[in-house]
Amino acid sequence: MVTLGSQAVVSQFFDLTSYLKERQKLVEEALDQSLPIIRPEKIYESMRYSLLAGGKRLRPILCLTTCELMGGTIEMAMPTACALEMIHTMSLIHDDLPAMDNDDYRRGKLTNHKVYGEDIAILAGDGLLAYAFEYVATQTRNVAPQKIIEVIARLGRTVGAAGLVGGQVLDLESEGRQDITTDTLTFIHTHKTGALLETSVVSGAILAGASDEDVQRLSRYAQNIGLAFQIVDDILDITATQEELGKTPRKDLQAQKVTYPSIWGIEASREQAQALVDEAIAQLAVYEEKAEPLRAIANYIVTRKH
Amino acid sequence: MVTLGSQAVVSQFFDLTSYLKERQKLVEEALDQSLPIIRPEKIYESMRYSLLAGGKRLRPILCLTTCELMGGTIEMAMPTACALEMIHTMSLIHDDLPAMDNDDYRRGKLTNHKVYGEDIAILAGDGLLAYAFEYVATQTRNVAPQKIIEVIARLGRTVGAAGLVGGQVLDLESEGRQDITTDTLTFIHTHKTGALLETSVVSGAILAGASDEDVQRLSRYAQNIGLAFQIVDDILDITATQEELGKTPRKDLQAQKVTYPSIWGIEASREQAQALVDEAIAQLAVYEEKAEPLRAIANYIVTRKH
Repeated sequence: MVTLGSQAVVSQFFDLTSYLKERQKLVEEALDQSLPIIRPEKIYESMRYSLLAGGKRLRPILCLTTCELMGGTIEMAMPTACALEMIHTMSLIHDDLPAMDNDDYRRGKLTNHKVYGEDIAILAGDGLLAYAFEYVATQTRNVAPQKIIEVIARLGRTVGAAGLVGGQVLDLESEGRQDITTDTLTFIHTHKTGALLETSVVSGAILAGASDEDVQRLSRYAQNIGLAFQIVDDILDITATQEELGKTPRKDLQAQKVTYPSIWGIEASREQAQALVDEAIAQLAVYEEKAEPLRAIANYIVTRKH
Repeated sequence: MVTLGSQAVVSQFFDLTSYLKERQKLVEEALDQSLPIIRPEKIYESMRYSLLAGGKRLRPILCLTTCELMGGTIEMAMPTACALEMIHTMSLIHDDLPAMDNDDYRRGKLTNHKVYGEDIAILAGDGLLAYAFEYVATQTRNVAPQKIIEVIARLGRTVGAAGLVGGQVLDLESEGRQDITTDTLTFIHTHKTGALLETSVVSGAILAGASDEDVQRLSRYAQNIGLAFQIVDDILDITATQEELGKTPRKDLQAQKVTYPSIWGIEASREQAQALVDEAIAQLAVYEEKAEPLRAIANYIVTRKH
């Protein structure tokens, strides 16, 4: 495994950079087509502004990847892949609001409310969230209806108080407090970041008709990379520049947030992230070389620079 | 048809007051059970505060009523009925925010953000919206999966930019402007109020397996009562007291909003509302006495005092 420049990761067996680039292009095209602008134009423009603002598209790509791994097609998973990015975007728009994290920049651009105002930003988030469910329900083809319902149920649980929303609430409550335990921190991250990554991985498999055993194995893979992803995020908040991150760095320090590196230190946090990635990759043994994309993505999570 | 006191409506054939009371009780119980409090408690308390704050429960009741009219059962429709109220509640919480309509009171109680803060209120709305879809997907029994997906698709469309969100955007843009046309006003209301009432009526029928013809007939019923409902709302904003409304009256006047009564005058608005209700009731002829609850509800909409 060699790291080239800021993002390129080349394995002996698998070219992740090309893989991600190709999938990212497919996802960008699908997202662009998913949301035409009609009356009232302003809300669609606001939704598109954030939805098409770039980003790694890691969640949709994971969904497509596991669907193919389990014998399904990209077409079967694409509406859900788009929905995952709509949900992720909605959570970013709402988290950035003045009443929450009060962020001015995201992915190197002004945040939604800085461009469109708070009212429209709140509504753009609501619109994207609702559209995610509509999109899965109306656009998914060649999948058994029961599987579509299962994916919708998981998406709902992932966004709600049992997922993203619950994680954000505990995150807000924890701000400025120095007595946060590792347990609470892990609750925040498994809900705020982990849940959506897990649903991304698992929903692709469900759409392909994967067995319960496969779904559980991929869940464990996802839980491990989800936590590793957050630890690396916390580390990058300390070590990366604004240019690398595309958003304001050192927000956690300024907000006096307890993070993994603030509890364990940077070096031990890096080791912990690596251990989680190793554990994630161990789940994939049974899939042999077919799981190479998932292995490479897991490795990418700990080596990424933004 | 006789109006007794502020709400009681008794027809020769049908006691709407008892009917609404009995259904309201069923809905209240189902809503109460739908959302237990777990960690993090604050968000569940905030969601329950608004979800269980009373209200007429007109949307869930319409859903139950049309499901029964089309040969289905209350049990088949109850999860969707609850979801409709979760969505309605979410739209009220977000519309009341300082960045939007900035309301302090709703249903006679402090608005969500006045009690829990803006951040939690935004998240409570998000949580309720996500939970609505999860709830329909996980709790609906004895309904063909394809019908459940159809209802989820309609719910999504109803909340999103093509429904509530789009209506609210145009409403915000129209505030303080005196050049609003009747067309724009009707766009606002068919999206902001009409869409959810229509989905309430239609989703119950879809769950019961109604034919396309029945669904279309009930759609027209719903579109007419939806617009009548909004016209009466606008009239009540002018004529009702705070006590009757449970929220601040004369908000429209203060905000210099163009409304139906501001364009047509109160008397002509009342006549228009009555004409729409008559048209709604005309759609129901084919169902004979079985549609008596829907007729009584349509009449109630124009005679209600809050």
